[in-house]
Amino acid sequence: MTRTWNFSPGPAVLPEAVLRRAQAALWDLDGSGIGVLEHSHRGKEFMAVLARAEALVRQLAAVPDDYDVLFLQGGASSQFFMVPMNFLGGATADYCVTGVWSEKAVEEARRFGTVHVACSSAAAGHTYIPGAAETTWSTAPAYAHFTSNNTIYGTQWTGEPAVPAGVPLVCDASSDIFSRPIDVARYALIYAGAQKNLGPSGVTLVIVKKELVAKGARDLPTMLQYRTFAANQSMYNTPPTFGIYVLAEVLRWIDELGGLPAMAARNRAKADLLYAELDRSPVFKGVVRADARSQMNVTFRGRNAAEDAAFVAFATARGLSGLAGHRSVGGMRASIYNAMELGGVQALVEAMQAFAAAHA
Amino acid sequence: MTRTWNFSPGPAVLPEAVLRRAQAALWDLDGSGIGVLEHSHRGKEFMAVLARAEALVRQLAAVPDDYDVLFLQGGASSQFFMVPMNFLGGATADYCVTGVWSEKAVEEARRFGTVHVACSSAAAGHTYIPGAAETTWSTAPAYAHFTSNNTIYGTQWTGEPAVPAGVPLVCDASSDIFSRPIDVARYALIYAGAQKNLGPSGVTLVIVKKELVAKGARDLPTMLQYRTFAANQSMYNTPPTFGIYVLAEVLRWIDELGGLPAMAARNRAKADLLYAELDRSPVFKGVVRADARSQMNVTFRGRNAAEDAAFVAFATARGLSGLAGHRSVGGMRASIYNAMELGGVQALVEAMQAFAAAHA
Repeated sequence: MTRTWNFSPGPAVLPEAVLRRAQAALWDLDGSGIGVLEHSHRGKEFMAVLARAEALVRQLAAVPDDYDVLFLQGGASSQFFMVPMNFLGGATADYCVTGVWSEKAVEEARRFGTVHVACSSAAAGHTYIPGAAETTWSTAPAYAHFTSNNTIYGTQWTGEPAVPAGVPLVCDASSDIFSRPIDVARYALIYAGAQKNLGPSGVTLVIVKKELVAKGARDLPTMLQYRTFAANQSMYNTPPTFGIYVLAEVLRWIDELGGLPAMAARNRAKADLLYAELDRSPVFKGVVRADARSQMNVTFRGRNAAEDAAFVAFATARGLSGLAGHRSVGGMRASIYNAMELGGVQALVEAMQAFAAAHA
Repeated sequence: MTRTWNFSPGPAVLPEAVLRRAQAALWDLDGSGIGVLEHSHRGKEFMAVLARAEALVRQLAAVPDDYDVLFLQGGASSQFFMVPMNFLGGATADYCVTGVWSEKAVEEARRFGTVHVACSSAAAGHTYIPGAAETTWSTAPAYAHFTSNNTIYGTQWTGEPAVPAGVPLVCDASSDIFSRPIDVARYALIYAGAQKNLGPSGVTLVIVKKELVAKGARDLPTMLQYRTFAANQSMYNTPPTFGIYVLAEVLRWIDELGGLPAMAARNRAKADLLYAELDRSPVFKGVVRADARSQMNVTFRGRNAAEDAAFVAFATARGLSGLAGHRSVGGMRASIYNAMELGGVQALVEAMQAFAAAHA
C-alpha cells in the first residue's frame, strides 16, 4: 500500500515504524493480552509506558533534575492561559510577537496582568525574527515568552532571545520541539502540543523548573495548577494514555536514530535541499527573510495565486499532500517535521522542477 | 492470539471490531494514504470523522436541536471546575453526593460560589442512592448536579433526581453514558469522559443546551468557555483527533447492535447474570443495596480480605483481569461497560463458582 507524502502542518506525518508498533499495541500492549487503549492508567503496563516517556524526554533533552516533565491535555492553546494564570498575578510579562500563536498567547495573558510587547514582526507580516537591537525588555517582568517556530509564516528563532539575567524564559516550542538540541537550563518552562514533532494531538508536553511550579498561584481549580500534575506524575486524573504511548514510541525512534543532534542534521539536510531549490527556481521563491527560515515549515510562492493553486493541484496528483499555505497567508507551505523523510522532500523538489519546466 | 477478559474500571475494554478498524486507520484512513493520527484536523478526511461522531451522538441519544454536542479535553475532572466557573458566579448550586467523584465536583464548585448538598450517601459509605424523601433542594439554585453512576462504590441512579421545575440539571455521566436510553431534554448539561463507555481517555463528550452555553461567564480564558467550542464545532484549536475517531467507531458499533435500547438489554443481561451469582454464592456477596446496584460496576466481596486477594489472583490466572476493587474500598469490582461481552461475565461467574467450590 502506497502512502502519501504528507506535508500537513499538524497533526502531521509520523514515523512508519511507530505506526506499525501502535497498530500492534492497539490489540495487545507488550504481550498483556489487552490493548493500549484499554489498559487502566494505574496498571503496571501503562505505568511502564509513562515512565518510558518521561525517561526518554529527560535523556534526549538532558533535562536537569530540578525540572518536572509533565503530560497535560488541551494543547498549546491551554498553555496560553495557564502560564499567566499561574505566574502573572497582575504583574507584567514580556512577549515576543512573531506570529498568530504569539498574538493569541498575548490575548490570554492580558486577562491576568500587563503584557509588554518586547518585540514584534507584525509590521513586516511576520517574515523575520526581531533581533536584540529592536527588542526592549521591561524591568523585572514575571517572565518572558516567545514562540520558537512560527508554523504559519515559516520563521524560526535560531536560538533563545537574549533576556536579561534572572528573567524566567517561557517558550511555546510546539512546532520545533526536539527537532534540534535544546539547552533546557536556559528556560523556566517549555510547552509543546505533541501533534507536530512528538505524536498525535491531545497531549501537551511541559518541561518546567520545579522552582517555578512551586511559585504558581494556589487559588485555582485543581486541574489548572501545574503542581497538581507535578505532584501526581501527570496522573491526578486519567491522562491521555494513547497519546503518551505514541509520544514514547516517537521518542524511542528519535533515540534510535541518534537523538537530537541526529534530528538536527536530518532536518537541516531536508531544509537545505528545499531552500536551495527555492533560491534557484525560475517559478518559486521563499517568503521569509533568509536568516529567519524555518527548518520545520518552508513557506513559498509561485508568481501569482493562480499558479500557487495550480501547483498544489499538480503536487496532489503526484501524491504530495498538505502543501497549501495557511488560509490567512496563501501560497504554499511544506511542513517537514522530524518524521518527514528526505525522500518526501526530494519528491517535492522534483515536483517543483517538473512544474517549473512545464510553466516557466 | 487470546485476549484477556478485561474488567478494568477505565480506560476499559473496547469492541474488537473497533480495535480492528482503528488498526487499519492508523496506517491509512478511509483510503487517503495517510493515517488517522497524521491527518490535519482541518482536512476533509477528519472533518468527515468529526461530523460522523456528532451525527451519531445526536441520532443515538435523540439529542434535541437546541443542544450542542461538544468534544473537549481534560476529562470529567476538568468539567468539575468548568461547570461552576461558567455557570455558578457566586450563587448557590445543589449537589447530590454519592461518591468520590461527586465530592471532587463539590470541592471545585466551592471555588466559585456556594454548594448546597441536596443529599448524600456518605454516612452509609455510599452504598445506596438517596431518594426524594431525604433530598432537599435550595431555592432557585444555579443548577443541580449529580453523578449518574458511581464507579468506585458500584451504585447507579435508575433515573434522574426529581429536581424542581426550571432548575438546570447537570450530570456527570462518565461511567454509564450510552449504556441505556437517556432523555436528553431533562438535562441542561451532560458530560462524560470517554474512557469507559465511549472510547479512549483524552476526549470528553459534552451535550449542553444552547441556552445554557449563551449564559456562561465571558470573563474567562477562551479555552474555558463552552461557547468557544460551540461556535467552532469543537475546532477552535486542534481537537484530540484520534479519540474522536475511536469514539465515532464505538458509536457506529452501538448503532449496528441496535442503539441504546439494545445496549440496555445487553447490559441488563450481563448485570443480572452476575448479581444472580452474588445472590446465590456461598462465598461472595454484593456490597451495595439491591435497589442501587450498578449495571456498569459490580462490587462484591468474599468473606474476608485474604479471600478477596486469593480470588483476584485465581481469576487473573484464568485470564480475567482488573477485578481488584478500588484501593479506597477493597474487595472486588467487575466493570462491565458496553463493550464487555456476555462471554466475559460468564467466564467470571464460572471462576466464582470454581473458586467457591474449592473454598466453600
